Amino acid sequence: MKHPFVLFAGVGDEDFRYASGFDVERGAYLSFAPDDDLLIVSTLEVERAREQGRAKRVADRIELGWQESDDPTAAWAAPITTALRERGLGEVSVPASLPAALYRALAEAGVEVVIQPRLLVEARRRKSPEERRWIHAAQRAAEAACVEVIRRIAEAEIRDGLLWEERRPLTSEHLIALASATLQELGYQATGLIVAGSPGSGLPHYRGSGQLRVGAPIVLDIFPRGAGTGYYGDLTRTVIAGPFEERWQRISDAVLAAFDAGAGQLKPGGNGQAAMRAACQALVDAGFGSSTQGLEGRPGPRLTHGLGHGVGLDVHEDPFLRDHPIELIEGDVVTVEPGLYEVGLGGVRWEDTGIIEASGFRSFGSLPKSLDPRAYL
Amino acid sequence: MKHPFVLFAGVGDEDFRYASGFDVERGAYLSFAPDDDLLIVSTLEVERAREQGRAKRVADRIELGWQESDDPTAAWAAPITTALRERGLGEVSVPASLPAALYRALAEAGVEVVIQPRLLVEARRRKSPEERRWIHAAQRAAEAACVEVIRRIAEAEIRDGLLWEERRPLTSEHLIALASATLQELGYQATGLIVAGSPGSGLPHYRGSGQLRVGAPIVLDIFPRGAGTGYYGDLTRTVIAGPFEERWQRISDAVLAAFDAGAGQLKPGGNGQAAMRAACQALVDAGFGSSTQGLEGRPGPRLTHGLGHGVGLDVHEDPFLRDHPIELIEGDVVTVEPGLYEVGLGGVRWEDTGIIEASGFRSFGSLPKSLDPRAYL
Repeated sequence: MKHPFVLFAGVGDEDFRYASGFDVERGAYLSFAPDDDLLIVSTLEVERAREQGRAKRVADRIELGWQESDDPTAAWAAPITTALRERGLGEVSVPASLPAALYRALAEAGVEVVIQPRLLVEARRRKSPEERRWIHAAQRAAEAACVEVIRRIAEAEIRDGLLWEERRPLTSEHLIALASATLQELGYQATGLIVAGSPGSGLPHYRGSGQLRVGAPIVLDIFPRGAGTGYYGDLTRTVIAGPFEERWQRISDAVLAAFDAGAGQLKPGGNGQAAMRAACQALVDAGFGSSTQGLEGRPGPRLTHGLGHGVGLDVHEDPFLRDHPIELIEGDVVTVEPGLYEVGLGGVRWEDTGIIEASGFRSFGSLPKSLDPRAYL
Repeated sequence: MKHPFVLFAGVGDEDFRYASGFDVERGAYLSFAPDDDLLIVSTLEVERAREQGRAKRVADRIELGWQESDDPTAAWAAPITTALRERGLGEVSVPASLPAALYRALAEAGVEVVIQPRLLVEARRRKSPEERRWIHAAQRAAEAACVEVIRRIAEAEIRDGLLWEERRPLTSEHLIALASATLQELGYQATGLIVAGSPGSGLPHYRGSGQLRVGAPIVLDIFPRGAGTGYYGDLTRTVIAGPFEERWQRISDAVLAAFDAGAGQLKPGGNGQAAMRAACQALVDAGFGSSTQGLEGRPGPRLTHGLGHGVGLDVHEDPFLRDHPIELIEGDVVTVEPGLYEVGLGGVRWEDTGIIEASGFRSFGSLPKSLDPRAYL
């Protein structure tokens, strides 16, 4: 973290909310030094910013020279520049996500703008005790919703190879709505949940649609966000209704082995790339493959994404556990989520979220990892 | 819209999704000419992009020279530059929201990058028949959820000046969860809904918390997003449980007059600023005020935000109806949402979403605007 720095709200990452403690559609945050900061917002938001934000000072953008403009992003350069000038500052750091229009407008106003792609990355990675509790609580909520969904699958009637509930088709849409409602009642927001039957589940980001069927994987990926805290959990389980071919159990076992191999590499001073490659090696050893260079294995089901990612105010944040070096630190909260996928067939994925401690990876999870829905009830 | 242009996903606005028809966390979209475009995504997303996206061509970022990097945003400059070079292009337009790190990396790679703050603004404003239907449907869903919430308020028991449901406190949190669940069942996502009792409702963006009480406004602001379409609706109603002071009716009547005065100015060739000022003038005429220059009126309850905003893939998008000139066009879909607020006391707001047609503003709404909850049932 290099002072002074400027953050802008509404840019697709949560740096602004992390640093300011305030959630707003548009606003600027200036940090001059630890405990010396300024939040600039519209007149409409000044009161709420004083009540809810953490910044030492809150200013109305109009009082710092903001004016209506046809380029509403660049318009923020004026109040930011005023605030910097008041401190005699001519140079600031900004993150990679600062909008280009604001970057250019600050430069044109004579400010030396230094892009620091990793400005808040280290600070955000090292989770405080409070942040750990919030993520852990979100993970418990995800588990509760997951069990609710699996219960419906376990209790579904089976007819013509399809799942039914009270004579109506049991669909992905219905189970996504059920999971969302459960999470809402627990105080969590949930958008983009996955309840994906097969063969759709062969694409890791396929959300799911239509009536579910027996004998093939149903992937449940649940990532609730605390409505008050803003912090996420992230969980995936895979179940199969009714009897299934032995091949799915072999795939599941391989993914479990990859999970353990990957998680075993997670410790302070360890490397995310080593974890990724250990997981891929386990898949190759089990007769499957990956898209990781040198660990392609044989044709057939393969791992096509990273082993995991950090979780916090963003559901996907640093550190990313991929085939790229990244040193792990104590306090990193990450997912471990290997999977095997075959387009046109289906996929199996196991995912838990946990924290990297001195002793290694400690999962926040408590659910089993079984293809059999009854194992969860 | 100036070709060629480049968009980047995950930047806090929906330009990328609008142009590509694809929703993804990270990706680049290049439009060379109408009907000649390219979507660049990770290996993981290639299949889904081909199935779900609208781009003529989809490319794997790795095949265009992308490499893992400690600056994952700037890393996208390589595949974008490759794709431009293949076409012999040295200059591209980008929107205001392009990340600064990518802007700089493209420039350093020798690309002439021209920031066009209004690159897609006009195209996105002129809603197609399909977009109009999607927003109208979202508005109907918002109304259904709103009526569900108002029903609970109308049917609540009243004791000690507070609202109860089956001997339990009737809270903002509970009604927000109810509205969200209703919307989920209808196929809509809902985050950030407002069910704000007073005095909290005196801050327009206060979400609401705790047990609701009689005799003071409860503001319900509901803005669902179609889970499949991505398009929003936006609706606000204000109700009061039990008897209330006559002053609240005067405030409500003034806001209604402002609504009509503002909506009356909305027509193709009209101006958003004229609508804003007409609404404020109506408030001043009724003995209240606003934060608009020259229309401050007398001290007391005042309008502290704009009259309205465009609605589409973003819940707040162009055109913004504020004290700043903006010419209105046929096909603009906007909210009209005047309110009067007093910090420490409460607020009243009426909001509908509708379309600007040759004949003027046609609301998508069908609900009354009454402080009496029974008027909605």
